[in-house]
Amino acid sequence: MTPIRVTYAVGGSAAEVRERAHAIAWEQSVEVPESVIVSQALRDAVVGRVEDISALCPQVHAVQIAYPGDHAEMPPSQLMNLVFGNISLLDTIRVLRIQLPHELSAYYDEPQFGCEGIRGVVGDGGVYDRPLLATALKPKGASTADLAGLAYGFALGGGDLVKDDHNLVDSRFDQYQRRVGACAEAVLRANEETGRRTLYLANLAGPSEELDERLAFLREVGAAGFLIAPFLVGLDRTQELARRYSLIAVSHPAWAGGFLGRTHGIAHDVLLGQLPRLLGLDASVFPNSGGRFGFTRGECLSIAERLLEPTEPSRRAAFPAPAGGMQLASVADMARDYGTEAMFLVGGALLQHSDDIRVSTRTFQQAIASHFGVAGA
Amino acid sequence: MTPIRVTYAVGGSAAEVRERAHAIAWEQSVEVPESVIVSQALRDAVVGRVEDISALCPQVHAVQIAYPGDHAEMPPSQLMNLVFGNISLLDTIRVLRIQLPHELSAYYDEPQFGCEGIRGVVGDGGVYDRPLLATALKPKGASTADLAGLAYGFALGGGDLVKDDHNLVDSRFDQYQRRVGACAEAVLRANEETGRRTLYLANLAGPSEELDERLAFLREVGAAGFLIAPFLVGLDRTQELARRYSLIAVSHPAWAGGFLGRTHGIAHDVLLGQLPRLLGLDASVFPNSGGRFGFTRGECLSIAERLLEPTEPSRRAAFPAPAGGMQLASVADMARDYGTEAMFLVGGALLQHSDDIRVSTRTFQQAIASHFGVAGA
Repeated sequence: MTPIRVTYAVGGSAAEVRERAHAIAWEQSVEVPESVIVSQALRDAVVGRVEDISALCPQVHAVQIAYPGDHAEMPPSQLMNLVFGNISLLDTIRVLRIQLPHELSAYYDEPQFGCEGIRGVVGDGGVYDRPLLATALKPKGASTADLAGLAYGFALGGGDLVKDDHNLVDSRFDQYQRRVGACAEAVLRANEETGRRTLYLANLAGPSEELDERLAFLREVGAAGFLIAPFLVGLDRTQELARRYSLIAVSHPAWAGGFLGRTHGIAHDVLLGQLPRLLGLDASVFPNSGGRFGFTRGECLSIAERLLEPTEPSRRAAFPAPAGGMQLASVADMARDYGTEAMFLVGGALLQHSDDIRVSTRTFQQAIASHFGVAGA
Repeated sequence: MTPIRVTYAVGGSAAEVRERAHAIAWEQSVEVPESVIVSQALRDAVVGRVEDISALCPQVHAVQIAYPGDHAEMPPSQLMNLVFGNISLLDTIRVLRIQLPHELSAYYDEPQFGCEGIRGVVGDGGVYDRPLLATALKPKGASTADLAGLAYGFALGGGDLVKDDHNLVDSRFDQYQRRVGACAEAVLRANEETGRRTLYLANLAGPSEELDERLAFLREVGAAGFLIAPFLVGLDRTQELARRYSLIAVSHPAWAGGFLGRTHGIAHDVLLGQLPRLLGLDASVFPNSGGRFGFTRGECLSIAERLLEPTEPSRRAAFPAPAGGMQLASVADMARDYGTEAMFLVGGALLQHSDDIRVSTRTFQQAIASHFGVAGA
């Protein structure tokens, strides 16, 4: 089988990194002192191989390691275990790139809907010529009626997707049913009035034993999909839930930031681009540059690239969903950076823009339309 | 309800941290611009409150924030979402301490066995006067017969717990049954010969849909418990699996290291001590100082403290399981650092010590016994 190739940025001088690279290859594959494995055949079959070391800057080197492909004939959690399990506990090792062999594609899902699938079910028979406009229902603490009212107004104003904020969480199933049911109903009612389709996605959070029931409930009330935080819920569990029903699944980056250190962790595009797409999620929310969070423009664009680029074997593309403090004035930059293939997620700014969410939504939607030279919603 | 109090180390000057602390409190509770919530009653009910700021060093300040207790009336993933969800995506914020109100204890489990429970079922009618000796079956790539042979020899040599290495993973259930079944059988056979009880714990890894079946299989073949990596499997899912059967559950830190940055992330003792115990796990494996990983002695001792300290309400203590390159010569330091209340996890060094795992195990067990002035196993 073709090996899995992983490129790391490893701290240290050239001599130090030569030693560290070797140690990483052993740690991540067999985790024993070298003297324990005397058989060369066993070494060839199971131990990672350092293929290349090259300087990135004086004290950081790119290290490419090839691990036997069959070490990750497993769901995504084991890929992450292989790539960054034990060595996450060391210092100055950053995963830059993961190249998966074709032979492993059965273990990873592709988005069920992806960009094309979502585009086909929104608006008036599909929206293909502009980015989608999404919002988040908030704040936590608002009444169910207020949240449902926001969802209703957003749909009337021509918004495309309205999702629960990731901190809208109900411990009890009956509370979840009440809140989510009201929001789903409000959006369906608005859709009947407008004749176009806005999608409602509920936050999938709750006791682990109950997540399946909550998903089934979403189907029942006509929610289009759900928001999920894979780093909190677990990678394989997320993959399992995403494939369970024919529902749109959107990735939220809560808790993921622990891995995004400048010198240690996992590169932004691998963590928030490649990984959510391999989990079968249809869109990935991430903090856009210029908002409340410190991601650079380059980091954001690299995430979008992993979500959208052609893959071998071919997998559906997933939507980049830049978010985190986007304003009306940000639309121009977002249009320039992402083009049509994105979902612009505007939360607080929509609430701030005016007292009427319908008006705010229409204003944002028109700004998008004018940037892309298409008719407003 | 009593609030949840979280202490963060936040980077910046005193003036900067005052602003940042305020922003953190809003981000983690309601995530909207302040102008959106005009009602003071709603602010009081849902927004986090900065209670204290004090300098730790010139550019780092300790910030204590009180979040409404009902924000985490949920399984552990939502506690982490509240404490470090979105702000994980910022820089230089480190969770130092989480104080949970009593009222939330129903949402968290206590270890089913804990230190006392494990002590009661090992050895010849219990082992109470010394640390336990544990090992890991490895390397990946070794035949099932070889792995079962190691488990058998370790049990004959008087070892206490033998667990699969965390990278022993079988994609297919029949492979899992074969390998795990053989190891469980080998240990049971050795136990019959010695008349004492060594515990075998299998690695619980596999397709998410299959984990329950794999657990049931462990019960069936007489395995005493399982190893699980909560950060890969997911926090709530781990909690769910740990409470499902009457099996000992041991936490592995794979992938957790992403959160352990010096200036950003989650403190070692919270991540690898407090959290596994709240998930209901009976022991927590972590890399000991002086081994292959860079944890300091202070960090290791703080992890042990969170696993063992009395809690209110009272919860069973869980075993600290220091590991990661422990040698025969390390036993003295480990004995000094951890005293009797630990599980010493020795992997590669046991394989290296001699060609006969039985002899190696006996040597390590005698070293422990002599340090604690008790009879050897």
